[in-house]
Amino acid sequence: MNFRSDNVSGIAPEVLAAIAAANSADAPSYGADPVTVRLTRRFTEIFEREVAVFPLATGTAANALALAAVTPPWGAVYCHEDSHVQTDECGAPEFYAGGAKLIAVPGADAKLSPAAVEARMTEQGVVHHVQPAAISISQVTEAGTLYTPAEVAALGALARRRGLALHMDGARFANAVAALGCAPAEITWRAGVDVLSFGATKNGALAAEAVIFFDPAKAADFAYRRKRGGHLFSKMRFVSAQLEACLADDLWLKNARHANRVAARLANGLAQIAGARLRYPTQANEVFVELPENAIRALAQAGFGFYRWGGEASLCLRLVAAFDSRLDDAEALIAVACRHAGPA
Amino acid sequence: MNFRSDNVSGIAPEVLAAIAAANSADAPSYGADPVTVRLTRRFTEIFEREVAVFPLATGTAANALALAAVTPPWGAVYCHEDSHVQTDECGAPEFYAGGAKLIAVPGADAKLSPAAVEARMTEQGVVHHVQPAAISISQVTEAGTLYTPAEVAALGALARRRGLALHMDGARFANAVAALGCAPAEITWRAGVDVLSFGATKNGALAAEAVIFFDPAKAADFAYRRKRGGHLFSKMRFVSAQLEACLADDLWLKNARHANRVAARLANGLAQIAGARLRYPTQANEVFVELPENAIRALAQAGFGFYRWGGEASLCLRLVAAFDSRLDDAEALIAVACRHAGPA
Amino acid sequence: MNFRSDNVSGIAPEVLAAIAAANSADAPSYGADPVTVRLTRRFTEIFEREVAVFPLATGTAANALALAAVTPPWGAVYCHEDSHVQTDECGAPEFYAGGAKLIAVPGADAKLSPAAVEARMTEQGVVHHVQPAAISISQVTEAGTLYTPAEVAALGALARRRGLALHMDGARFANAVAALGCAPAEITWRAGVDVLSFGATKNGALAAEAVIFFDPAKAADFAYRRKRGGHLFSKMRFVSAQLEACLADDLWLKNARHANRVAARLANGLAQIAGARLRYPTQANEVFVELPENAIRALAQAGFGFYRWGGEASLCLRLVAAFDSRLDDAEALIAVACRHAGPA
Amino acid sequence: MNFRSDNVSGIAPEVLAAIAAANSADAPSYGADPVTVRLTRRFTEIFEREVAVFPLATGTAANALALAAVTPPWGAVYCHEDSHVQTDECGAPEFYAGGAKLIAVPGADAKLSPAAVEARMTEQGVVHHVQPAAISISQVTEAGTLYTPAEVAALGALARRRGLALHMDGARFANAVAALGCAPAEITWRAGVDVLSFGATKNGALAAEAVIFFDPAKAADFAYRRKRGGHLFSKMRFVSAQLEACLADDLWLKNARHANRVAARLANGLAQIAGARLRYPTQANEVFVELPENAIRALAQAGFGFYRWGGEASLCLRLVAAFDSRLDDAEALIAVACRHAGPA
Repeated sequence: MNFRSDNVSGIAPEVLAAIAAANSADAPSYGADPVTVRLTRRFTEIFEREVAVFPLATGTAANALALAAVTPPWGAVYCHEDSHVQTDECGAPEFYAGGAKLIAVPGADAKLSPAAVEARMTEQGVVHHVQPAAISISQVTEAGTLYTPAEVAALGALARRRGLALHMDGARFANAVAALGCAPAEITWRAGVDVLSFGATKNGALAAEAVIFFDPAKAADFAYRRKRGGHLFSKMRFVSAQLEACLADDLWLKNARHANRVAARLANGLAQIAGARLRYPTQANEVFVELPENAIRALAQAGFGFYRWGGEASLCLRLVAAFDSRLDDAEALIAVACRHAGPA
Repeated sequence: MNFRSDNVSGIAPEVLAAIAAANSADAPSYGADPVTVRLTRRFTEIFEREVAVFPLATGTAANALALAAVTPPWGAVYCHEDSHVQTDECGAPEFYAGGAKLIAVPGADAKLSPAAVEARMTEQGVVHHVQPAAISISQVTEAGTLYTPAEVAALGALARRRGLALHMDGARFANAVAALGCAPAEITWRAGVDVLSFGATKNGALAAEAVIFFDPAKAADFAYRRKRGGHLFSKMRFVSAQLEACLADDLWLKNARHANRVAARLANGLAQIAGARLRYPTQANEVFVELPENAIRALAQAGFGFYRWGGEASLCLRLVAAFDSRLDDAEALIAVACRHAGPA
Repeated sequence: MNFRSDNVSGIAPEVLAAIAAANSADAPSYGADPVTVRLTRRFTEIFEREVAVFPLATGTAANALALAAVTPPWGAVYCHEDSHVQTDECGAPEFYAGGAKLIAVPGADAKLSPAAVEARMTEQGVVHHVQPAAISISQVTEAGTLYTPAEVAALGALARRRGLALHMDGARFANAVAALGCAPAEITWRAGVDVLSFGATKNGALAAEAVIFFDPAKAADFAYRRKRGGHLFSKMRFVSAQLEACLADDLWLKNARHANRVAARLANGLAQIAGARLRYPTQANEVFVELPENAIRALAQAGFGFYRWGGEASLCLRLVAAFDSRLDDAEALIAVACRHAGPA
Repeated sequence: MNFRSDNVSGIAPEVLAAIAAANSADAPSYGADPVTVRLTRRFTEIFEREVAVFPLATGTAANALALAAVTPPWGAVYCHEDSHVQTDECGAPEFYAGGAKLIAVPGADAKLSPAAVEARMTEQGVVHHVQPAAISISQVTEAGTLYTPAEVAALGALARRRGLALHMDGARFANAVAALGCAPAEITWRAGVDVLSFGATKNGALAAEAVIFFDPAKAADFAYRRKRGGHLFSKMRFVSAQLEACLADDLWLKNARHANRVAARLANGLAQIAGARLRYPTQANEVFVELPENAIRALAQAGFGFYRWGGEASLCLRLVAAFDSRLDDAEALIAVACRHAGPA
């Protein structure tokens, strides 16, 4: 009944089993183990091209290190004003990128448009200004919405034209791929993405993410950055094993599809309620819904977990479904909300 | 048969069980969970005073963040020239401390003496020099040796007198406490240590360390530093559970005592061999031994894992025992070495 | 005839004479010279309180160092979206402040309102967010406008209430004081300003600015920051002598009054022209005026120097008057513009 | 009579005249002025090849920015343990290079030998270690000694072989060229130097240095680094004019030759005194001489300025001659010292 975040969930059984399996014998440390080697091969299959893969353990580390790899200290990163890198990482990207500047760009549904980004881009080569270096988008976005492949490609084209890198924060990448029903390549490198923060923690891992470079040549220095940030794990195989378990038998997509389904049910159910309004379209595993105060209170009293989006006085709830959320809980939530608000 | 490092070992069964146990239900994220709360209480008991505890997942992160918390960017950290922070963290302390300077100090057995440190200390207040800010020692040291409580206290006294902080890299803190048979407080805050990197990864955890401040007031900003470094785990309970399992029923000390015992056996056995010489006294779980080349080759061929200390041509081996090293393997190693070198 | 910027002007004769005078004998280096000592005393008189004074040579250094002194690396600085620190310092504040974040706030006439700042302030103490640390305003602003003492004080009150520091970029502070006719204290510490970048370069110095702390206790670390940034001059007396010359006999205010007068004449004259429009009120030494394209071209052809504000296609000119601008040139400019546009 | 440092001297008359001359009219800011353009041309002649020239105002800024340009944040810079970058810049190189590590190397007469440097170099590509990136030498050294062209070339060859950059701190480059009687190219790019901090402040400028890249292609990002450090001067022509004046009619070499001559006289004279000993050979404009305490006191009482090298109790004096030091003062100093110590 806890819809506060997909990070309140625990570890998927397949992932926990993989950790235990990786514990059967000694192994070389720092990534020279066989699990990590297999993992890179698996990602290569999934993305249909040679990739450089760097496992680590938090999404903030993945994003900050990835952005630092494509942005000089005097660089500008264009991101949505509500994006995780801008609002929820306590300045980690600026720290890792040596003081680079994030340019907060507005946009409906937490999405960037090429026009909005380009309008904020200063000319390259003027020494007084930070230099346009990267665009960062979230897929799924902070509003639970999705970029279509064409939308990503439009930003990729802008990035190419202006000589910038394109980064994708894929903390919920699985939910995006599952919802779009596309090949992972289609919304990444084929659309111009250079580097991806591939998330697994929110999707059933203990703590496992991967930074993936679609052009391994651009990853030359990344190993130093990761080590220097304290993100190189001595017992790396246990991070890699989590990712491998997620990718095996498409567990990542199965888990994501389930979460998306529960969110869709929530959205559809709540949308029927009098006075309810979906703030953003529910396209993946997050629902942003405005409800009457007495319905919100009833949900809290009934023991449902959620955030009031925008502060304790807000009437907008964020409900996040995870790999282990139950449809029954979703139904129960809808029922409580409905009872205290009445159908539309 | 793998004595390369204590990080080639896997997860202790008690720790793996604790991870699984923490997976039984949803939990608040980012450290607001009950396991993390209990963990701080447990450390308070162990150290016999109120402490501030910050779980994280790598030793490099623990050291670099701890040093950054006690050193301004224009500060100097005095450390041994062979210390992990100086030689094996790819500059992580400098990165986290905003470009602070590590002053490499020589000393027998990888230990700092107050005299050697003070000789390198510049006067405080001269704007041209980096300002003396911290002393960092490793307990167990990089040579597998130990500081006695009195030796730590002497450095603690110097630190107090000159207004510096004292940091302890305790990646193998359990091995030190087990070997010295002292109270944890005796070699930390009672001896003047301000902040400790408490290691569990090398002692049976998957990936778990804790930065411990003995004066919680000095930890005011640490939460921001950790978050900003990407070291705040969303599913924190799984890091905390590893530490809690280590501390339960003194598992940390049992594991460490075992490793120390295997190392002692190795040291005693190898010391009997003709042409063998212990480079450093074996005081915890690491053995540094010079052996004839043919003995070294025989060990490699027999499948034993180890490092040649100082490069591939070195005749000095580092052998590290872990919580799961077997005395039988130690005996077998001694026997092979002995056969190929002959007794003294 | 060059109105491009007040930095195209040279050195005021009194300042050059002071440099020559300071050259009469040897002097202690790094600020231990008598000129620098006298300078601090002079600033203390001017600001009617004990101040800590740090001479240096560029406005970017002054701003970046001042902000770094009041903002931790995980801090947020609220500044106008058009401010110099945000747009024209290539990320110097972020660099000096270890990766702090500047929050760009909109506002009419390049001015911040307390409401606009507070609306963007996140709650203190939430570890995911950068922490509100400072407000930075420009006096004169980038639009050539002024904060009244009451407007500064309102921002000062907000800063106090929320525990932030208030920084003033005073690259054109002299022009502000001259225009407002107030005591320097009135728009600085009496209104809640903690630290001021006091500019002289744009007002007749070769290269001289000063960072002034109104509470000397808060300047404890500044000397290290300045040295470490490479901004501690060995022959400091020649920087201090420039500032002293500016302050002697109120030269700074005389120079500023003159520049303001020329700008006022330009504004009044151009405002009469058909199709002309002042984009911002002219309150100090800068005029932002929209003119017909043929008038702009005529001015360029006649040899007048100016910027097209917002790019080469812009119809808005920025005209800046300096201490040595001539009223005759202003009249001539108005005449040319008038001839090619016709009176309103 | 002040031999404390060459930075207690003032401005050479030719330099002051050049500043005044540059003040005759308005000029474009930020280096687009004709003086700066001419300056680059002049350096190209002097160094007999195309160079990229970046004027700035302090030696610390020149060194720190130059090193940052050739060292990644995870890089190691090998420098002498007594070098200015290591001991007297309050960590500026670490700050500008994003936390890079300076490796302090011992060596007689404050000089690095290739063997001593290489002995401390770790293998490239091992992620745990900072990566060898640059060698930094001072010419003149902190001991007032010189590298011969062959000695520079030997370090240059090591740098090439191992893929490192070679930086030269030339705060007293003029004194070195004057003393060696060689072409500037011979001890710089022909010997493998990549980037030079060319000093003028100690040689008669108000505050003027230049960072010179011998391969302009490697200077691509330097303009951003300089701006971001707050070292881009708006009225740049006045910095450039100082440098141009130094280079005109070989004033830099004339001034340096004079200073060297005064130092040689001091060294020769003092060496005759009973109990006196030159600590280092006097090869440029600095004398390091051990004297009896009563001779030192007599010098102080007679009003001579000097440093006790190594602290207030030291019996070793550093005497530095500048462009405006007088031979008469040197004779007088020798006479006083002689009188209070007696000839050898």
